[in-house]
Amino acid sequence: MDVKAILAHKRALVEEALTSYMLKAEGPLTDHITAMHYSLFAGGKRVRPILCLATAEALGANPKSLLPLACALECIHTYSLIHDDLPAMDNDDLRRGMPTSHKKFGEAAAILAGDGLLSYAFELLTLPELNAALSPAAQVRIVHLVAKAIGPLGMVGGQALDLAAEGQTIPFEALQRIHRCKTGALITASVQTGAIGGQADTQQFASLTSFGEHLGLAFQIVDDLLNVEGTTEQLGKAAGSDAARNKATYPAFFGVGETRAMAITAVDAAIASLTAFDQRADFLRELARYIYTRTA
Amino acid sequence: MDVKAILAHKRALVEEALTSYMLKAEGPLTDHITAMHYSLFAGGKRVRPILCLATAEALGANPKSLLPLACALECIHTYSLIHDDLPAMDNDDLRRGMPTSHKKFGEAAAILAGDGLLSYAFELLTLPELNAALSPAAQVRIVHLVAKAIGPLGMVGGQALDLAAEGQTIPFEALQRIHRCKTGALITASVQTGAIGGQADTQQFASLTSFGEHLGLAFQIVDDLLNVEGTTEQLGKAAGSDAARNKATYPAFFGVGETRAMAITAVDAAIASLTAFDQRADFLRELARYIYTRTA
Repeated sequence: MDVKAILAHKRALVEEALTSYMLKAEGPLTDHITAMHYSLFAGGKRVRPILCLATAEALGANPKSLLPLACALECIHTYSLIHDDLPAMDNDDLRRGMPTSHKKFGEAAAILAGDGLLSYAFELLTLPELNAALSPAAQVRIVHLVAKAIGPLGMVGGQALDLAAEGQTIPFEALQRIHRCKTGALITASVQTGAIGGQADTQQFASLTSFGEHLGLAFQIVDDLLNVEGTTEQLGKAAGSDAARNKATYPAFFGVGETRAMAITAVDAAIASLTAFDQRADFLRELARYIYTRTA
Repeated sequence: MDVKAILAHKRALVEEALTSYMLKAEGPLTDHITAMHYSLFAGGKRVRPILCLATAEALGANPKSLLPLACALECIHTYSLIHDDLPAMDNDDLRRGMPTSHKKFGEAAAILAGDGLLSYAFELLTLPELNAALSPAAQVRIVHLVAKAIGPLGMVGGQALDLAAEGQTIPFEALQRIHRCKTGALITASVQTGAIGGQADTQQFASLTSFGEHLGLAFQIVDDLLNVEGTTEQLGKAAGSDAARNKATYPAFFGVGETRAMAITAVDAAIASLTAFDQRADFLRELARYIYTRTA
């Protein structure tokens, strides 16, 4: 299986959908919508929408009918990056090799671009055209689980914990909680959204949730490794910034070698969650392996 | 009809529901949840939840079953106040006579408290217990209209336009657009949420939407008047701040006398939208009149 080629194909599908579903930046309401576009089309890997679509495919569903859901997940991810980069938060100047939203448009526009993307995501999650593929009950379930995943006990909570931990010595359990909330929750929710979109039964939903949780963990461990080992050019942001900030990371706790082993364990656990699925889940399996190879 | 007494009773109902539905500020995820509570329980008038509940009542529904929806609307309103007050936005130090969120908790916590309230609102709009009163299709419709009302072409757009207009001379049409987006959209959505909660038919939904639109306009005109005529003590924020900022307002365009007349016209139009409703809509009618008397 040529994972890279399939990824490129799926990414193109998501890009096209994002372009078609996003509001145009025209008329009097222009500036904050321009800022929304800027960050949304800044070269993201589209991991969350691709996970959502691939999960639905693993269950035999046609992913095209679920594209509004996939786009909503990317809007949410983008909002979180814009707000996390703000001066009052992580105060980052670069994101994916480009000036961050507040550097480009000013703080007010960046805050509003984030707020706009977050609100718009829920418009997309309930777009009338989804009725062809999803029952209203399934849509309600998706809205609820996504809202919970990104809320005060999920992604927002993770960012709050992360800020509180900066410059502090925290135990490993606290680092795990930060990762689970800040990155893991939306990745798991993306898989779950695809699972509901693909009409998973209770057993399948539980297995896919487990897949999402292990994958989210693998993803975060690899991110920590890349921050240590990558170059600024590869990352599109300052390499070694975690260490410079004295941030708790997997490599800081366990060293690079053991961290690599932990990433492999997480990937294996993700793949093991898919035992009951047939070859239609092969792309999910390959995707999990591919995440690890990003460090190699 | 003793509007004040009914308002106080409904407000108490909303307060109690907000207390029961809000997350507790305990465990490791405490600080941003404390900030959410601080602004949510800072003495708001609960106009939007009350409008939602009263609209459902006007259609014969039991408002208690819709309390999660009412609480969600208040969470959204509170998030918008927290973000609007931020230094990069309106830079306000006082809100309802108390330090604003960022003054009390710092900017990062204030941004996250707003993000948390916005996300949590969508959790509340899809709370499983709503299934007893609302079909999944009705819930999806509510999520969609609320998201649209507060999104890039709604409330977020209104704030963007408002910021862009500061210090500028804008035509009256631009002021109307700002009001319609920034304040009107969520007030109308609150009425519409109650209308769907009360199972309004197409005709009733259209009439109630018209009621909400006129009421939202009346509300904003009165707000402008209060900013001119109220004292800092009455307002809980700096009186005359609009004029000091050279902000476009109804009194700045038309003078106080004509602005009062326009408020009465808007209230009358709101009430006229309810012609087809019986005496169960009397509280909505009185509420519209009451909004005007706030200036008298």
